[in-house]
Amino acid sequence: MLGAVIGLVFAFILIALVMRASAGNERMRQISGAVQEGAKAYLNRQVITISAIAVVIFLLLFFFKDHPTAIGFVIGAFCSLSAGYIGMRIAVIANVRTTQAATHSLLSALRIAFNGGAVTGLLVVGLALLAVSIFYTIASNMVGHDLAIRSLVGLALGASLISVFARLGGGIYTKASDVGADLVGKIEKGLEEDDPRNPATIADNVGDNVGDCAGMAADVFETYAVSLIGAILVGALTLASEPAAIIYPFVLGGISVLGAICGVLFVNFARGKPASVLMGAVGTSALISAILFWPATHRLFPNGITIGGLARTPTQLYCASVIGLIMTAVVVVITNYYTSMRYRPVQKIAYASETGHATNIIAGLAVGQHATALPVGFIGIAILLSFHFAGLYGIAIAVMSMLSMAGIIISLDSFGPITDNAGGVAVMSNLPKEVRSVTDQLDAVGNTMKAVTKGYAIASAGLAALVLFGSYVEELKAHVTRNGEPFAFQFSLTEPKVIIGLFLGGLLPFIFTAFSMDAVGKAAGAVVREVRRQLQAKPGILTGQDTPEYGTCVDIVTKAALREMIVPALLPLVFVVAVATIKPLGPVVLGGLLVGTIVTGLFVAIAMTSGGGAWDNAKKFIEEGNLGGKGSFAHQAAVTGDTVGDPYKDTAGPAINPMIKVVNIVAILIIPIFF
Amino acid sequence: MLGAVIGLVFAFILIALVMRASAGNERMRQISGAVQEGAKAYLNRQVITISAIAVVIFLLLFFFKDHPTAIGFVIGAFCSLSAGYIGMRIAVIANVRTTQAATHSLLSALRIAFNGGAVTGLLVVGLALLAVSIFYTIASNMVGHDLAIRSLVGLALGASLISVFARLGGGIYTKASDVGADLVGKIEKGLEEDDPRNPATIADNVGDNVGDCAGMAADVFETYAVSLIGAILVGALTLASEPAAIIYPFVLGGISVLGAICGVLFVNFARGKPASVLMGAVGTSALISAILFWPATHRLFPNGITIGGLARTPTQLYCASVIGLIMTAVVVVITNYYTSMRYRPVQKIAYASETGHATNIIAGLAVGQHATALPVGFIGIAILLSFHFAGLYGIAIAVMSMLSMAGIIISLDSFGPITDNAGGVAVMSNLPKEVRSVTDQLDAVGNTMKAVTKGYAIASAGLAALVLFGSYVEELKAHVTRNGEPFAFQFSLTEPKVIIGLFLGGLLPFIFTAFSMDAVGKAAGAVVREVRRQLQAKPGILTGQDTPEYGTCVDIVTKAALREMIVPALLPLVFVVAVATIKPLGPVVLGGLLVGTIVTGLFVAIAMTSGGGAWDNAKKFIEEGNLGGKGSFAHQAAVTGDTVGDPYKDTAGPAINPMIKVVNIVAILIIPIFF
Repeated sequence: MLGAVIGLVFAFILIALVMRASAGNERMRQISGAVQEGAKAYLNRQVITISAIAVVIFLLLFFFKDHPTAIGFVIGAFCSLSAGYIGMRIAVIANVRTTQAATHSLLSALRIAFNGGAVTGLLVVGLALLAVSIFYTIASNMVGHDLAIRSLVGLALGASLISVFARLGGGIYTKASDVGADLVGKIEKGLEEDDPRNPATIADNVGDNVGDCAGMAADVFETYAVSLIGAILVGALTLASEPAAIIYPFVLGGISVLGAICGVLFVNFARGKPASVLMGAVGTSALISAILFWPATHRLFPNGITIGGLARTPTQLYCASVIGLIMTAVVVVITNYYTSMRYRPVQKIAYASETGHATNIIAGLAVGQHATALPVGFIGIAILLSFHFAGLYGIAIAVMSMLSMAGIIISLDSFGPITDNAGGVAVMSNLPKEVRSVTDQLDAVGNTMKAVTKGYAIASAGLAALVLFGSYVEELKAHVTRNGEPFAFQFSLTEPKVIIGLFLGGLLPFIFTAFSMDAVGKAAGAVVREVRRQLQAKPGILTGQDTPEYGTCVDIVTKAALREMIVPALLPLVFVVAVATIKPLGPVVLGGLLVGTIVTGLFVAIAMTSGGGAWDNAKKFIEEGNLGGKGSFAHQAAVTGDTVGDPYKDTAGPAINPMIKVVNIVAILIIPIFF
Repeated sequence: MLGAVIGLVFAFILIALVMRASAGNERMRQISGAVQEGAKAYLNRQVITISAIAVVIFLLLFFFKDHPTAIGFVIGAFCSLSAGYIGMRIAVIANVRTTQAATHSLLSALRIAFNGGAVTGLLVVGLALLAVSIFYTIASNMVGHDLAIRSLVGLALGASLISVFARLGGGIYTKASDVGADLVGKIEKGLEEDDPRNPATIADNVGDNVGDCAGMAADVFETYAVSLIGAILVGALTLASEPAAIIYPFVLGGISVLGAICGVLFVNFARGKPASVLMGAVGTSALISAILFWPATHRLFPNGITIGGLARTPTQLYCASVIGLIMTAVVVVITNYYTSMRYRPVQKIAYASETGHATNIIAGLAVGQHATALPVGFIGIAILLSFHFAGLYGIAIAVMSMLSMAGIIISLDSFGPITDNAGGVAVMSNLPKEVRSVTDQLDAVGNTMKAVTKGYAIASAGLAALVLFGSYVEELKAHVTRNGEPFAFQFSLTEPKVIIGLFLGGLLPFIFTAFSMDAVGKAAGAVVREVRRQLQAKPGILTGQDTPEYGTCVDIVTKAALREMIVPALLPLVFVVAVATIKPLGPVVLGGLLVGTIVTGLFVAIAMTSGGGAWDNAKKFIEEGNLGGKGSFAHQAAVTGDTVGDPYKDTAGPAINPMIKVVNIVAILIIPIFF
């Protein structure tokens, strides 16, 4: 709790710092205001839609499960929504100030944008730590330790479910408006990005805030809270006699807040290339955490702990926690390689664009698939090692320590949409070209950072989901009896039901992303038609004599996003309940399903987010003047690739992350109801 | 054996029938001759390349395993290569005759093309049945029953490994030349498909024969032989005391040859729309088989059989076999829905093309992913039911009966490339447009049939691989001892090693297809550069005054295909051996790997083959005059989609099919060497 409070205080200092910066001239504030208004309007409507569904689930939990779980659900949902709001509010404050700072220097723009991101990072992490710890403390006192632990699963469900909605709704919004704006504006009419003559341009900028900022903040809140809860659950289910096992995850989280603060300070004082400064911040943060974990672990487990019948030394637990930090670094480096324009994969896509749209797409798809190999390999190593050090609890600790880096990592992620928007404000306010060039440089770094943090999010989600699967098995063991005796289900690969479960689970990420991409396609089509209609009705828009009606595009995409998010978001929930209740299936098939979803989900998500990031930067690589530069044949092909990559990397791919956890959490929750 | 011989005799009658048809005028024979020569030249060089690798593996088996297995490997490899040759030879004979028949009527062209395909179908199935049964009979007499059964795995490896090479080499060849020809010819220069002024056009037509005909024939030979061997293996390992259990798979195969012959006769006498006639043939064939299976099963198991401690009636076994037939029908119907232009998915892609290249790609990717849901669902049901009826043996029987339909199914598959080539011959021989229109109609049907048969191939491959995984577990149980006692490994999902195996196995299809697509991209790039060079050096080519040098394109793509197939083809082999030998991994991780490969392989393969087929037919839908027809903006986008779909559906996707079996077979083979 102390760590969380320190983080929150530091975040407020940063807010003051950002607010103090100049918000630019009248025109800039006007545009930023329009974006802010659109974003707020969308989030408000999203809250109403989601609340309707949340109320139904709350009532189900209230009447069919227990009250603490239902209340936990409400708290998780509320915090997840708040995290989204925070992310959006900070971003719209920071973006216009970044534009203004960009009129002075690259470094000051970098710092404003990063500090804006850091506020979100610290607030979200602080919120998650506080919410879980306060809820746990109060619930333990009121309903006892056991039920308190179990009702944390409700909190996890609230966080995850809202996060799926926020990721999908925001993702559909941002990409539908982006794709729609690009297809007519850039490709048909030859307008620049963010040209104020494009009727969809405000919607596009609103999208960056509701998707990349709000959606991402909700998502990371969820990942953080669920990993923490997963670690507590495993600690409680397998090490019931060791209270320190439950406290340890909280301690790791609290310490890393200090690490994150050091990382933020690093950015504000270091000089150098943007990418190097940001990477340096991650390194600093990880190093500080690694150093502080050592005394904390030894203090908490002075005599070690017995796990799975073996005595484990505090050093072994420490090793498990360091694995999480190393994994963060490894995933960041690998994803950076596949998505930064300085390396071969992105350049390969750029060169493939010279022979046309199709070869660009083929190359991008291949890069995305290649990008799965190393992360998955390292995840395997991390599982092997952390299990070796401390069994399933070791994996849970590694995940928690990986997630404890979230504070600094979200700072990087938020940085992307803030600079993207800053560029939009610059163009729409007719600021000199040099300003746009500064924000463009930051934007390219932001693209890579976004891809990197998505790689991090999905890798940690995969591990967190495995921990949840472990909890599912333990919970099942604790709950199910046959003839009065406790009964342990076997999940052997030689059992056809397990294989069927793997197939059904493996299917989920495929159709989930298929629905998400369809949703973006449909919503983007509506935007395209509206933009074409406006340009036809008022030919003066293109010559600058008429003002486009930005509001109608915002309205269309708002409605479309809210409508289209429902089916994919409810899909995993329905799937799990169906498998649990349809007769020849049941708990064993469900176990297979959980693992199957994790396995294919990991691959699909990494392939989509890395591939999408690589496409985006391949376009940027050409726009920097390579291979003919802007307007060349290669550039057109690269724009196609970028547009395909948009729903990949910002809608479907990242939404898999909360989705695989929803599946696991729902499975844990329904054990006492159906089995 | 009797069934096989009847099938072969009938095939020779069909050859005579096809040969009797007119081969058209001088110009047609000339073009067909050029294609034939290119195809022969490529296959010869492919044989040399593959033989070098096959010799190494033969020597390894000879010295580290036993001699019968090594000899089995040679026989499997030889037969697989022969099947490829047969497929190619028949196709080049049939295509020009189809063109000639198309000058008379649609129906006669359909029959020639189908009969050509049917020859391949019957020869391949006959060859597989004969090879396995003769080898088994001789080996049993010479080295005893047990070793004979085990050495069948060598035959399976020979068939599978060659098939991976043939699928990849042929697939890279056909798609590199196709993509290369399209990118310059169609998109840059606005030439029609198969325009003789395009220097890559002969290479393109050669590709259809070496990829879709030779590659596919080798592939189906492999699937058939491996499913048969898998069923025998499961029969021998789990039902050692029941000789009928080993004979039953052969009997099912033999009977279905008769079913296939009836299907062929149906096509030659029925009238109606091409698609309905072909579907009618599949129905007839399945019905005849279902009727004949009944007395055969009761005759072979008059008193039933005991499996897994339960007495099973002959009717239960019969039900397992009928499940395979029903699965065939189900997969055919589902894939037809997703890839035929008469239904919504393909039309959705076509409509998405109106808003550009990117939305076409997004829609196509989504359709491919959606297309995985139903087949996988039904595979789950098939596993559940056939296991219910007769345990693992029941699954093996269902797979074998599904594969027993291969005779008629390949006839459909071969039909596609034959009509594709027939169209090429028509254009290059300057035949009247009506002829091309007839072949185009058949080609559209052929596209769907190709997608349908690929869905069938991958669904059956998934089931066959599961049977092989069952054999791996049984073989491991039979072989491994700890302290002198037999030792059974556990493959529980709660064991981290199994999870790691699932991850590593899940990875394989992703990087395998990534490498394959890269290979096509690289080879296509080489073709593009050569075509551009020729058109620049000799501007007279485009005006018709100069003849292009077709030979150099054929040469370039031949070399590129042979070079690029090596890495992906050896990847699964190296992967399995690495997992088996690297220390902390071993048999349990390997078991997880086998299942992981099956799970993601199934999804990736179905998504790729269905998506590719849908893209292709979306283009055809527009070319029929919808949405602006040829040359419209939508058509350009649809051509991009088709080009992306090419390596999906004809290289990477179908190559997964033999790949997942190679992985399983190699795992079985190395048990006594490493564990």
